[in-house]
Amino acid sequence: MRIVDLIEKKKNGETLSQEEIHYIIEEYTKGTLADYQMSALLMAICFVGLNDEETAILTDAMMHSGDVIDLSSIHGIKVDKHSTGGVGDKTSLVLGPMVAACGVPVAKMSGRGLGHTGGTLDKLESIPNIDVYLTEEAFINQVNNIGLAIIGQSAQLVPADKKMYALRDVTATVPSIPLIASSIMSKKLAAGSDAILLDVKYGDGAFMKTKADAKKLAETMITIGKSLNRDTRATLSNMNQPLGNAIGNSLEVKEAIETLNGHGPQDLLELCLEAGSHMLVQAKRTNSLDKARKMLEQTITDQTAIKKLEDMVNAQGGDSSYITNPSKFHLPKQIVKVKSRKTGYIKDLHAHTLGIVSMKLGGGREKTEDKIDYSVGIILHKKIGDYVEEGEHLLEVHTNTGLNEELLNEILASYEIVEEKVKKPLIIDEVIF
Amino acid sequence: MRIVDLIEKKKNGETLSQEEIHYIIEEYTKGTLADYQMSALLMAICFVGLNDEETAILTDAMMHSGDVIDLSSIHGIKVDKHSTGGVGDKTSLVLGPMVAACGVPVAKMSGRGLGHTGGTLDKLESIPNIDVYLTEEAFINQVNNIGLAIIGQSAQLVPADKKMYALRDVTATVPSIPLIASSIMSKKLAAGSDAILLDVKYGDGAFMKTKADAKKLAETMITIGKSLNRDTRATLSNMNQPLGNAIGNSLEVKEAIETLNGHGPQDLLELCLEAGSHMLVQAKRTNSLDKARKMLEQTITDQTAIKKLEDMVNAQGGDSSYITNPSKFHLPKQIVKVKSRKTGYIKDLHAHTLGIVSMKLGGGREKTEDKIDYSVGIILHKKIGDYVEEGEHLLEVHTNTGLNEELLNEILASYEIVEEKVKKPLIIDEVIF
Repeated sequence: MRIVDLIEKKKNGETLSQEEIHYIIEEYTKGTLADYQMSALLMAICFVGLNDEETAILTDAMMHSGDVIDLSSIHGIKVDKHSTGGVGDKTSLVLGPMVAACGVPVAKMSGRGLGHTGGTLDKLESIPNIDVYLTEEAFINQVNNIGLAIIGQSAQLVPADKKMYALRDVTATVPSIPLIASSIMSKKLAAGSDAILLDVKYGDGAFMKTKADAKKLAETMITIGKSLNRDTRATLSNMNQPLGNAIGNSLEVKEAIETLNGHGPQDLLELCLEAGSHMLVQAKRTNSLDKARKMLEQTITDQTAIKKLEDMVNAQGGDSSYITNPSKFHLPKQIVKVKSRKTGYIKDLHAHTLGIVSMKLGGGREKTEDKIDYSVGIILHKKIGDYVEEGEHLLEVHTNTGLNEELLNEILASYEIVEEKVKKPLIIDEVIF
Repeated sequence: MRIVDLIEKKKNGETLSQEEIHYIIEEYTKGTLADYQMSALLMAICFVGLNDEETAILTDAMMHSGDVIDLSSIHGIKVDKHSTGGVGDKTSLVLGPMVAACGVPVAKMSGRGLGHTGGTLDKLESIPNIDVYLTEEAFINQVNNIGLAIIGQSAQLVPADKKMYALRDVTATVPSIPLIASSIMSKKLAAGSDAILLDVKYGDGAFMKTKADAKKLAETMITIGKSLNRDTRATLSNMNQPLGNAIGNSLEVKEAIETLNGHGPQDLLELCLEAGSHMLVQAKRTNSLDKARKMLEQTITDQTAIKKLEDMVNAQGGDSSYITNPSKFHLPKQIVKVKSRKTGYIKDLHAHTLGIVSMKLGGGREKTEDKIDYSVGIILHKKIGDYVEEGEHLLEVHTNTGLNEELLNEILASYEIVEEKVKKPLIIDEVIF
């Protein structure tokens, strides 16, 4: 088999066989397929795509390029949740404890933030001393003991994806639905879960800009999951404005705690209840979505969910007094309140811009090696559909480096204010399965 | 400027600017643009193309990536001729001496053969002691003294093309008209000619399989030439069967000598007369194609063309007694005559297959480092339109390694013989300028 012939075949729109796809991924992982051939192939895939079968085979080949975690010693059906990423997305920190409090084991591997999006691991690390790198044994033991663990992915998981993603990033081959789908699903499958709930976000602050693309991505991942015998479902959720009100690491942890205490923002709670209901059904905890939703609501009322988060932080060596007393979180030097210069209804609120502003304040990474300032970020006072008067506060900026004219202008430009009333958007458009 | 943004731009079908294209070629030649980014860009170009302006800019940037030969010290208008390559194409060895004999200086850089196509340098080297690597000074002096030199391209000419071509070869990005056009034209322009006559071949034995693709390639190259102020013309010629009757190095030199002596095959002579007429007009030797053709015919009648070839071989240190007495060329161990197994008219004669057979006999290279056996090859006795009876000779195979069953079957399969009369194909379909 010659790689150049396989590139040619794909370029001509032909279908690659199972043997060919496995050969490509094996040779690339070993380093005997050169980056310059892989990037040409990836670009051809950006143009001609992969069919469902090829995408499932690719996912399977990538999944098996490194370690595959065996979670069989954890009792019960393990449902993993994955978000395609957005601004203010602290869902895992709310949903994990709620689902675990319903008796469904949550053994979750999360990532770090890059660019305008945050990462669950970075948010968790705003809690002093927490350890997000456990051994596989400790990870499994913790889930068996308390039902919940959120940790970082080990280096030996899906090495093919690591290499391919780094290559795609510098060759303009990131935006391809089969490549995105196989990248996400290979990691979820290698992480050992039995069922997968995907939160596929669309809009200004998400990787998928349109609902149509998000739906196509969701459908592709569901097809992959089914072909590899994993119950896979997806929520299509709106990321045209940030999720909840908080953007920034400790600010988002505090908002997650507020939500688990029953005082969270409506959109975040709704997303967690809807996604969580499906996860309970996928885990066969109940066969009714309605009952599942009530069980989840109960974990907030009876405080079992917040207790789960506290237990997890404790188990991972973190200072859980920050969960019971969130005022302990370090405050930044300055909180600048930004006033509206117009009166009217908020029609648009650019999540992407605010994600970038939070990154520039030090709350995110422009490059992977950048350090994070956990205390900075943004708290929104007004969101789409809200009425605001000139001089009223739109948001507050938590900063250790002040707020210069340029950032202020970016923030103001991210709000679009009109005279006519604006309807509040739904957070979830559709659940696909 | 970030390369990944330029790849993205081209992938999205946008136009790259002059500054961007020059940046890409400069960085790639220096080695600061990685092969994996270049191959992704080349694949994107295979899908979305380059417009005429981008192609001209790319050609100019590639041309200036290394040395540009200054032929201004050669008196007169220098017209270069380039063939896109085929089987049995010894045109340069006939056309060069004829045009030079008409008083137009011919300073030609040629290439070597690879795969099913032969190269002029390899053919020339079947003449003992000939030197095809002259210094630029010696090259110019020879053209000023005798009007004709055919040499190999120096290593410093168009290094960007060398790197890009090697990369395209292993990444399935060869068949792209703007990339082929800029590769050819950058070399012709760097070689210093004032005007260019392109022989663009189409058909089974050519790189362009269809007449439409060949025409598109020709038009693209003419547009490049015009935008860089070079009078550029192109013959579209048929390569569905080999050109002339000889395939193989010394066999083709002998056929070139026969043609210059007035006994050559009709198709080869016609191609040389037609292409040469345009070259004489491009060189402003005359403004009439008819007069030009008569001048060229005269160089055969009065033996000035064959004398030119003799002079050139002498000047380049070769044994010119081989030109005056071609029976001196080394004969192979065996000449096997292949008989027809059918009676009828030859409808098709696969040039590509016969090119590969000649290569397998040792007359060509599968890999660039392969050595050539100058004495082997094929002499066709029957071509398209000819009538053949069962048992009559179709061709003779000149071989030092016998002729095995497999090669014999390939040869027989390359002839398609039918009952109905078949018209002889025209060698030139069109001349574009």
